Amino acid sequence: MIYFDNSATTKPYKEVLDSFVTVSSQFFGNPSSLHSLGGQAEKLLSQAREQVGQLLHVKAGEIFFTSGGTESNNLAVKGAALSSRNRGKHLITSSVEHPSIRLAMEQLEQEGFDITYVPVDEKGRVSVADVEEAIRKDTILISIMLVNNEVGTIQPIREIGEMLKKHPTILFHVDGIQGIGKVPFCLNEDRIDLCSLSGHKFHGLKGTGILYIRDGVRITPLFSGGNQERKIRSGTENVAGAVALAKALRMTLTKGEKGIESIRKIQNLLRKELYKNEFIQINTPVDHAAPHILNFSLKGIKSEVFVHALEEKKVFVSTTSACSSKKKSASSTLIAMGVPEAIAETAIRISLSFDNTLEEAIEVIKAIEGTVKQLERVMK
Amino acid sequence: MIYFDNSATTKPYKEVLDSFVTVSSQFFGNPSSLHSLGGQAEKLLSQAREQVGQLLHVKAGEIFFTSGGTESNNLAVKGAALSSRNRGKHLITSSVEHPSIRLAMEQLEQEGFDITYVPVDEKGRVSVADVEEAIRKDTILISIMLVNNEVGTIQPIREIGEMLKKHPTILFHVDGIQGIGKVPFCLNEDRIDLCSLSGHKFHGLKGTGILYIRDGVRITPLFSGGNQERKIRSGTENVAGAVALAKALRMTLTKGEKGIESIRKIQNLLRKELYKNEFIQINTPVDHAAPHILNFSLKGIKSEVFVHALEEKKVFVSTTSACSSKKKSASSTLIAMGVPEAIAETAIRISLSFDNTLEEAIEVIKAIEGTVKQLERVMK
Repeated sequence: MIYFDNSATTKPYKEVLDSFVTVSSQFFGNPSSLHSLGGQAEKLLSQAREQVGQLLHVKAGEIFFTSGGTESNNLAVKGAALSSRNRGKHLITSSVEHPSIRLAMEQLEQEGFDITYVPVDEKGRVSVADVEEAIRKDTILISIMLVNNEVGTIQPIREIGEMLKKHPTILFHVDGIQGIGKVPFCLNEDRIDLCSLSGHKFHGLKGTGILYIRDGVRITPLFSGGNQERKIRSGTENVAGAVALAKALRMTLTKGEKGIESIRKIQNLLRKELYKNEFIQINTPVDHAAPHILNFSLKGIKSEVFVHALEEKKVFVSTTSACSSKKKSASSTLIAMGVPEAIAETAIRISLSFDNTLEEAIEVIKAIEGTVKQLERVMK
Repeated sequence: MIYFDNSATTKPYKEVLDSFVTVSSQFFGNPSSLHSLGGQAEKLLSQAREQVGQLLHVKAGEIFFTSGGTESNNLAVKGAALSSRNRGKHLITSSVEHPSIRLAMEQLEQEGFDITYVPVDEKGRVSVADVEEAIRKDTILISIMLVNNEVGTIQPIREIGEMLKKHPTILFHVDGIQGIGKVPFCLNEDRIDLCSLSGHKFHGLKGTGILYIRDGVRITPLFSGGNQERKIRSGTENVAGAVALAKALRMTLTKGEKGIESIRKIQNLLRKELYKNEFIQINTPVDHAAPHILNFSLKGIKSEVFVHALEEKKVFVSTTSACSSKKKSASSTLIAMGVPEAIAETAIRISLSFDNTLEEAIEVIKAIEGTVKQLERVMK
């Protein structure tokens, strides 16, 4: 089996799962309990927070544990909008965000907020000038993703952050879920106020996530209650999940430049070989592309058909994002990039993890070419 | 070690953790993925949902997986309030709810909703007449807990449900988190529209929960995004967590009447023996008390002091609820019951699980009596 669908989810590292089990079974106390079982759990939670803070070069107190990327994105966008609504009701985002941003924005629109969707160019990238131009006096939040989940385009986060230094009151949220570990960015230097991460995208566990909230930034909680996570996210803390997430993040970031280089090589090989095939059009841009995602279209073959045909050769890839894959509509990112609907409807996404190898890529290329040959008659 | 703090959290069953590990490592696909790894994960998720539905005697489609009790409570109360606000803005709850209900109500109050807090009697119980009297033409939701988390009082859920049959448009939410498995109730027959449960309170894992939403009841989601959980709760599903939760629920409910009888015996013994001690006042009522919670006060000794003194004898109990234990304020439930502040400030909560034994209770009684003797001089 070759698993090339790592942007949908990754296989948890064994060490991550081991940590989860150890904490769940041996340190099961409620961190809020006054006795030592609570104290032990609280200590583990603090250590996990410290570790994540160090890994992301921010303060431990700026790390908030959540139940995943969707919660982090919703908490960031809705929490910031609600807490700043007295200052203004205008939000800016891009036309290629994940549904957990796009639909959160739509929900806010129903609550009287005004949203500007900045378009992207043919590479799927927003321009800093367009973002700047969208800014109004009543703009309170800008939310832009680090890496697009469907085609892998890297957004100009640093440049937007730089531009925003002129607008100190506008909050800047970055959905870092698809980028972390693969695309360098710096929470501190890039003037980022809020950043979402999801554990299961980097070999952590489903149901675990992080929201980075810069010191001094106030957001309204979605969950009220026992005032855990400094009142921002009530609910008994998933201590074992937080420890597991910290470990997964450490293991991922430790692979660093070397890991990125290795997946870039795999991506380059895939791109080079697939490019030769007359039926294939590569949708992921050459510039500003994350190293782990390659999106291509197979003229004339519906994405689902191709995904299932490849699966028969034990190769697992996806159509668009997992979150949208059952809707059977064309990739919204490709449409926003101006790709014709017929091409967008036939898109396939390959997404790599640091565990994938060049040998696997060679197998996948063979499998794709074989499948294309099988389906050639249909395509012609 | 004797762990008598099971209302704060429970130790996960080994079998529950084993299931979590198996699913996380062997069936790690994203349920939304089109390929068979996704299909396998989706199937496991459906099975977990079916199992929970059967155990609770409701349809699988009425079970929604969440990240825990606090999320379930917030989603129920805020989701119902927001979706029904066109019909009215009045909500009813009791004066002894968990902070995740009370503070969610307070947040809604700031959004223009009007809240009535129905008082409780000296046993910590609301009266059906008071609830009925609080109903107005614009009442849209009533939220009452099944079992109070601090003293263990059982609320008249069935009777409130019965009375509400005259008010078909009012939604009825029950926070069942402390009661499930210990106090029989029936989602169907008791005319309950929404019910929250939390996995880690019955030997499941932290970070897992359920919201029961009766067919036809509409609530507004807190998380928008990939439209998982039938659009009510977006976010990649924590499949392993859901499977683990279903197993924990099955194991808990299987213990049934026999399990309840065994903890009732332990509670009775504790009550009988502690009652004899001149320094102890028992706060948990005799009638309408859940079998697993016993709350008592030690005149003159601050709760924290006693918790730590007992801990030296390897006995783990708590002051009030874990969620409130660090606030160092007196138990809000006891205050609402009319208990004097001096007694409320010295409250201790014992909370049992089906794994506790009479032998442990005898040890705990000895430990409490020994500690009382040590502290006697202070108390006199």
